[in-house]
Amino acid sequence: MPARPVTPGGRVRNMTEPNQRGPLRAGILVTGTEVLTATIQDRNGPWLSEQLTSLGVELAEIVVVADHREDLRNVLEHMRAVGIDLIITTGGLGPTADDLTAEVVAEFTGRELELDRGMERKIQQILSRFAASTAMTVSAEGVNAANRKQAMVPRGATALDPVGTAPGLVVPGPDGQLVLVLPGPPRELKPMWSSALELPQVKEVLARATPLHSYRLRMFGTPESELAMELRGIEADGGTLDDLEITTCLRKGEVEIDVRYRDGAEAAADALRDELQSRFPRSLYSLDGTTIDEVVAGLLQEHRLGLAESCSAGLLAARIADIPGSSDYFAGGAVTYSDRSKSGLLGVDPDLLSRYGAVSDEVAEAMAIGALERFEADVAVSVTGIAGPGGGTEEKPVGLVCFNARTAGGESRAVSPVIPGGRRDVRERSALVGMHLLRRLLGG
Amino acid sequence: MPARPVTPGGRVRNMTEPNQRGPLRAGILVTGTEVLTATIQDRNGPWLSEQLTSLGVELAEIVVVADHREDLRNVLEHMRAVGIDLIITTGGLGPTADDLTAEVVAEFTGRELELDRGMERKIQQILSRFAASTAMTVSAEGVNAANRKQAMVPRGATALDPVGTAPGLVVPGPDGQLVLVLPGPPRELKPMWSSALELPQVKEVLARATPLHSYRLRMFGTPESELAMELRGIEADGGTLDDLEITTCLRKGEVEIDVRYRDGAEAAADALRDELQSRFPRSLYSLDGTTIDEVVAGLLQEHRLGLAESCSAGLLAARIADIPGSSDYFAGGAVTYSDRSKSGLLGVDPDLLSRYGAVSDEVAEAMAIGALERFEADVAVSVTGIAGPGGGTEEKPVGLVCFNARTAGGESRAVSPVIPGGRRDVRERSALVGMHLLRRLLGG
Repeated sequence: MPARPVTPGGRVRNMTEPNQRGPLRAGILVTGTEVLTATIQDRNGPWLSEQLTSLGVELAEIVVVADHREDLRNVLEHMRAVGIDLIITTGGLGPTADDLTAEVVAEFTGRELELDRGMERKIQQILSRFAASTAMTVSAEGVNAANRKQAMVPRGATALDPVGTAPGLVVPGPDGQLVLVLPGPPRELKPMWSSALELPQVKEVLARATPLHSYRLRMFGTPESELAMELRGIEADGGTLDDLEITTCLRKGEVEIDVRYRDGAEAAADALRDELQSRFPRSLYSLDGTTIDEVVAGLLQEHRLGLAESCSAGLLAARIADIPGSSDYFAGGAVTYSDRSKSGLLGVDPDLLSRYGAVSDEVAEAMAIGALERFEADVAVSVTGIAGPGGGTEEKPVGLVCFNARTAGGESRAVSPVIPGGRRDVRERSALVGMHLLRRLLGG
Repeated sequence: MPARPVTPGGRVRNMTEPNQRGPLRAGILVTGTEVLTATIQDRNGPWLSEQLTSLGVELAEIVVVADHREDLRNVLEHMRAVGIDLIITTGGLGPTADDLTAEVVAEFTGRELELDRGMERKIQQILSRFAASTAMTVSAEGVNAANRKQAMVPRGATALDPVGTAPGLVVPGPDGQLVLVLPGPPRELKPMWSSALELPQVKEVLARATPLHSYRLRMFGTPESELAMELRGIEADGGTLDDLEITTCLRKGEVEIDVRYRDGAEAAADALRDELQSRFPRSLYSLDGTTIDEVVAGLLQEHRLGLAESCSAGLLAARIADIPGSSDYFAGGAVTYSDRSKSGLLGVDPDLLSRYGAVSDEVAEAMAIGALERFEADVAVSVTGIAGPGGGTEEKPVGLVCFNARTAGGESRAVSPVIPGGRRDVRERSALVGMHLLRRLLGG
């Protein structure tokens, strides 16, 4: 199937449909009123989706429901009706009465719940350790009732040892499908998923999936529409994209390109990567999913960085410091939000400020020079702009941001784009542009 | 139904089930391979969930599927089977062949697609403006085919004017339910949702919902388990929570308490808020959902703030500057990541650094004093800590963070907790603790 154009307006499109359906389909059932009501964001669905993709399993759907018996049951029946082979549930395994998942799955698979005495002892031990560590007052009676509930296992199912206090379950379904019952907290779910993959009955199901390979490219400074045009150009020039699933996505100011393919399409996948690299030599900066923060961290080794931020106000510093080991090359930054602090901390000439204004190429340059000096750095970047909503003029609109990146040796790069969007967009995009300017200065 | 205890281990629980089911139930169908594969995060489901809640509509489920005809159809049939009254779809309205939603909804509702000539003209105008503004080369033929597809409306349905290029649809379903078809990009979906609410047929359905009221409280410094205990205490003391749906959620280091209730339960809801306020006079800081950043912004009016950050490295400055108008009171901050910059920028005595170490109450105090002076501020906060993964010792473990908040008048607050978690957790929590220390210093 040919690559299709990106919709005007910057919408994200899946450009080619998967060229072949995997024989194994999975469904994810996320339970929890707090997720359904948007009180918390579901992180398990997307995480499991990535795991399944890497195993070559096609994910058919993710369903979020509240902890209501009937709703849970209806979704399980629906997944059965549409022929899903692997049902994964998350959440609803706690000790309280609204934790219903194990019970509903037992009903759905037609298996009676039985007390697993070994599991009961394990949970008891975990709870007593927990109570001791927090000096919590717990009634023995309440705890016993609660953990007896958590130790109930459908007949014929396999219990997975708790990571927190709740065991997971692997339950054979009514028509040969498998139901994998996992806890809700991500830090419990992830290790338990790994344990589940070791079980023979899970391995047997997953063996039916055909492996899927993938890579991720990242671009900065090329609109998605131009990428879509080049993809069509590659096809017109005889390149074949038929066996590749290409997803492009605008994320945080960059374009991500995910390419997925099955065995046999390696050559086409490699050719596409080479072709994109030669068509976008400047903007395609990551061939292996490495982020701009990681690229810049690599380039900064053996350097000493100083920052001067106004409108981004610490966001650039925070990105630099987010990388472990950054204290080796990050000397520090000045967040100079007022004119007085630009002069006081960075030595920006007050005349310059009054003549050109705080948001100007001249002041950006003076700020970067000040950062080099102040932090005894050999590389510096400055950011000064109008984040809005107020403060814009006809000459200097909201979104105008001036950047200056320079080395102690006198090399420099400067840009002053007008960044679209609201206050937060302008500030976050400023930090991103600052990172890319650093990359270009350091030759990455 | 009594409030139930929070599960040990910090898990989030819905504490009481809704005491009554609304007569009107909705389902959300999110379409898009990019969402299902976790390439992008779905923001429409949670946003629509909040909108529905505020209208008193009970949301039964959110389902995410790829742009596959059969999968879409199956979910619609499932929603019909479980008696959902209002089906809202998002995505799949673009001009390309994998945009299937309108077609599948037409089939599902048994209505033929007809070309809406007026809509066709509207889309043509939008596309020509778009092409002109981007100097894009588009083939007239391709554009015509694409916008004709987007202008197809199921017979008897109402088309909603495009916000981007795709019109939305309101389609009466086979058993009296209503299908609301909305575009995928959030900035198109949100305005179109508002337009849809104005339509008589949508109003008629929504009139069957019983209004739901809610408020949100925020706490800092009290574990969720203690809150659960107090809620049980309130019931034991004769308070009634039966008519309230209480959801507690640990979010970014704070506890959020959402209380929802229907007409008639106002007195119980007010009583609960008063009771919690008297039981948590220190930690319950927001009675109306106001965030700590907003509370601090209010307290900082007429002040002049300077910051001194080491391990949080700009995150505190970024939170302060995130609030529009912060330039009125935010002078600036020094991100002093190295010892040299702590002395150079903030005037911290090198002897102090060598005697006590950069992470110490003494250095935190000197940093805050330096920030007061440097920024000519009357309020300052400093943060210095060990974010990890390296750098910890037995005496000063990873996660130890020293804070000092002070006024030019000599009032001060200091804390030095050991913050659990990874590098990012420690840094983000540091910024949060810094905000709360400011609040306490300024008497909020």
